[in-house]
Amino acid sequence: MKKTILVDMDGVLSDVYAWLFDMHQRQTGHRLTIDDVAGKLEGEAFPEQLKLVAEPGFFRNLPVMQGSREGLRKLNDRHKVVIVSLATEFPYSLTDKQLWLNENFPFISWRQVVLCGDKQLVKAEIMIDDHLKNLDNFQGETLMFSQPHNLLIKNSRHRRVESWEEIEKLLLF
Amino acid sequence: MKKTILVDMDGVLSDVYAWLFDMHQRQTGHRLTIDDVAGKLEGEAFPEQLKLVAEPGFFRNLPVMQGSREGLRKLNDRHKVVIVSLATEFPYSLTDKQLWLNENFPFISWRQVVLCGDKQLVKAEIMIDDHLKNLDNFQGETLMFSQPHNLLIKNSRHRRVESWEEIEKLLLF
Repeated sequence: MKKTILVDMDGVLSDVYAWLFDMHQRQTGHRLTIDDVAGKLEGEAFPEQLKLVAEPGFFRNLPVMQGSREGLRKLNDRHKVVIVSLATEFPYSLTDKQLWLNENFPFISWRQVVLCGDKQLVKAEIMIDDHLKNLDNFQGETLMFSQPHNLLIKNSRHRRVESWEEIEKLLLF
Repeated sequence: MKKTILVDMDGVLSDVYAWLFDMHQRQTGHRLTIDDVAGKLEGEAFPEQLKLVAEPGFFRNLPVMQGSREGLRKLNDRHKVVIVSLATEFPYSLTDKQLWLNENFPFISWRQVVLCGDKQLVKAEIMIDDHLKNLDNFQGETLMFSQPHNLLIKNSRHRRVESWEEIEKLLLF
């Protein structure tokens, strides 16, 4: 049955951590490991690098999450996909995020995008997200996409998924 | 009782027509009247001027609708206000709209803003909008804000309001 699925951007479609690890290494000469940052929110683990989120350009050039293009395309063929991202806090992120989506996910129409300040306002049946602040407030089925900051969370009601391949298996069969 | 109210931007908070009439006059030397454009969508009435909506800056400097600042402030004190605008079609409009809101309606938090491609995705009980495409698809109570393009619509199920003062009377008492 066709369902409405909210798909998060940062940490699900865009690989924010890949950028953060690289930028930290470039700036300090030292490469952090997953263990160094596991369980810390992005702003705790990369305080210097995260200061850039309010600047024009930060969200324009993030790398695409491995497997997300193929996975989202299949999801989009079968379900009603809505891309939803917390973005209004940083006005310059808004244009950057839409241009990034248009470039990297051209099969997603602008009609399927919601850039907002509170995901609770959006109607849907399934949410794919990496952050508890979004997942915990969602009424429907939740998939928690594994990212370093959520690795230590155990026994939540959210089903953990490690990759886009795993999302495909869950939602396409 | 506190209700969630969706408030449109263009034609409700921003006075797009004031800008269109002025720009048309500046470009042609001829001032159109309300009668000239009544019943026509903005793009039909002002085809040349509307070509600018995709450009950076168009939505950044629109005039504020008369009475909207005072009216929205009162609504915001009493109800849960959510500003919702169709915007993702034009990526550069997104940043412009949020910066415009921050400047002209500083009492509205970024948490209360939804910039999207389909208003049907947003949960609420009341919608204030000038366009039938949004009002007709909304399940709750609807207020149709009078603008030139909707002046000839009769017998719709939407309650017509002519001004922000009228909105205040309906939703605050």
